[in-house]
Amino acid sequence: MQFLILAAGKPSLGYAKEGVELYLNRLRPFGKTELKLVRDGSSQDVSKRLLAASEGCLRIAMDERGELWTTRKLVDLAKDWQMHSVRRIAFLIGASDGHTEELRSRCNHILSLSKFTLQHELALVVLLEQLYRCHTILAGTPYHR
Amino acid sequence: MQFLILAAGKPSLGYAKEGVELYLNRLRPFGKTELKLVRDGSSQDVSKRLLAASEGCLRIAMDERGELWTTRKLVDLAKDWQMHSVRRIAFLIGASDGHTEELRSRCNHILSLSKFTLQHELALVVLLEQLYRCHTILAGTPYHR
Repeated sequence: MQFLILAAGKPSLGYAKEGVELYLNRLRPFGKTELKLVRDGSSQDVSKRLLAASEGCLRIAMDERGELWTTRKLVDLAKDWQMHSVRRIAFLIGASDGHTEELRSRCNHILSLSKFTLQHELALVVLLEQLYRCHTILAGTPYHR
Repeated sequence: MQFLILAAGKPSLGYAKEGVELYLNRLRPFGKTELKLVRDGSSQDVSKRLLAASEGCLRIAMDERGELWTTRKLVDLAKDWQMHSVRRIAFLIGASDGHTEELRSRCNHILSLSKFTLQHELALVVLLEQLYRCHTILAGTPYHR
């Protein structure tokens, strides 16, 4: 099971870059987690790029109007993906004006990290922390604070 | 209207410290927002310290089992606090094992930033980003990314 995180635009906030690095490092022992950045632009363009980059993956769009999952729910889904040999799971973080309807309709899940509107680089950190937490629970290893 | 954020323990994650600094700086022009750290310890001890430090404030406990607010809802509440001259609003972030029932019962709101279990320093960054966002909306000033 590999996680692919796709986001639009280069991170510009120092703390968010650091947070992303930290969790990508912590995720390393658990298998492949890859962060790929696509070029920023209009909702239309970014959605197309995100769809192209996630071809063949189970797709999860990040959207504040999506479902709210508990950590438990994410872990249960991850167990399911492992059991059914779903190899690649892509998390799609859009441009600031959101995803197109087409992208939303082509995703397996629409996930909301928070009902609050989160700055999208911060959303990326929250997502990575959650994937790290999920892996520690699956592996039964301690969570490093 | 002043925001007082109370959290247990010293931040130890570099990126979170930086994120906290960034948003506290951005919040400065909008009036007083203060972060106070209380000594870490058992749920019992931390809850007592948080209650003592927030005496006289409208209290909001951060708890993943709490209500999920949209940014709009926070802004509407903030308008209400301004209108009713609620001077000090305290946000209480507990120890990793959560708040006591006593603390919960003495708070005006129980707020959940996410249904996901968030590392509590990351929760602090998310909260501060949200307070900054709230202030920019109230003031009608642009949000700096």
